[in-house]
Amino acid sequence: MTTAKRDTYTPETLLSVAVQVFIERGYDGTSMEHLSKAAGISKSSIYHHVTGKEELLRRAVSRALDELFGILDEEHARVGTAAERLEYVVRRMVEVLMAELPYVTLLLRVRGNTGTERWALERRREFDHRVAALLKDAAAEGDVRADVEVRLATRLVFGMINSIVEWYRPDGPDGRGATGGTGEREVVDAVARLVFGGLRRAS
Amino acid sequence: MTTAKRDTYTPETLLSVAVQVFIERGYDGTSMEHLSKAAGISKSSIYHHVTGKEELLRRAVSRALDELFGILDEEHARVGTAAERLEYVVRRMVEVLMAELPYVTLLLRVRGNTGTERWALERRREFDHRVAALLKDAAAEGDVRADVEVRLATRLVFGMINSIVEWYRPDGPDGRGATGGTGEREVVDAVARLVFGGLRRAS
Repeated sequence: MTTAKRDTYTPETLLSVAVQVFIERGYDGTSMEHLSKAAGISKSSIYHHVTGKEELLRRAVSRALDELFGILDEEHARVGTAAERLEYVVRRMVEVLMAELPYVTLLLRVRGNTGTERWALERRREFDHRVAALLKDAAAEGDVRADVEVRLATRLVFGMINSIVEWYRPDGPDGRGATGGTGEREVVDAVARLVFGGLRRAS
Repeated sequence: MTTAKRDTYTPETLLSVAVQVFIERGYDGTSMEHLSKAAGISKSSIYHHVTGKEELLRRAVSRALDELFGILDEEHARVGTAAERLEYVVRRMVEVLMAELPYVTLLLRVRGNTGTERWALERRREFDHRVAALLKDAAAEGDVRADVEVRLATRLVFGMINSIVEWYRPDGPDGRGATGGTGEREVVDAVARLVFGGLRRAS
């Protein structure tokens, strides 16, 4: 039985189980024992795949970070006015957050006690700075309001986007998930409209 | 020594220490032993003030909830167009969040295992509904865009506001706190501008 179960395990499925456990118990509060129980395989089977829980954390947050940084290399993030590129990046950030929900959730909860956590925080800051630079350029080009300081605006916009992990759940097979049927497209459009146009009706 | 220390303790200072410990360790991860050590008083001294940690949690989240609900009774939250009242409430929410930072932070982290936690979540939902109703009225009056569903807009706006607890720190005596000197007024104005007008420069 154990052998059969172990055979079905790939580094990928192990990672996905580990991410769930990290989110539920917190990274600090997760032991190899917890991971072994949740995955239904022995600790030695886990060590067959990875050196320990820190490697699982690194792989998980790398996945989220790679997707996020990947956005910045996409054509629409490189070509056009800064405001156009910024809007593209904001929309894609929301898409990545929803597509990689557990990985981004974990990334956002990282606090920084281990080397991997500090590295992840540093990479997050780097990403924030890249987006803040776009915002600064858009303000310099006159397309973004200049009466909110760039760093503060970046923090608030990231705050809105990142808060989606608190309530968004992908739709179930019936097409209505825990989010009550709010689709990905609807969320992306809503964020883009609010971030750029705000609540006030254009008059 | 213990007696001298105990004498300086009031329910208020005990509450403030408990809130810090709850935030750092999580409510579930906090024992009376932790509270006793952090407060520098014996467990029996704590029991002199409260029946246990759940009462401390209830007092702490009540303080945040009372301040938040209090906003809705203020004159500017009751008089004017729905859009004006909504803007007033948004600004006051940011002010309360900053003034009662640890209490609001704790309220936002409550997850719901005990009766007090479930009660706090229920009260938070009630507050969200009150603000969502204002947003709905403002949309009906034609002052708020109708192309973002009310519940989704409320979630995103609350997401932006609540994210402030992640980085805002009150200014130190030198006038420049961990937030690098971003003042309360600047944060309130920035949130109001972004929530209502968005990033895009009015043309």
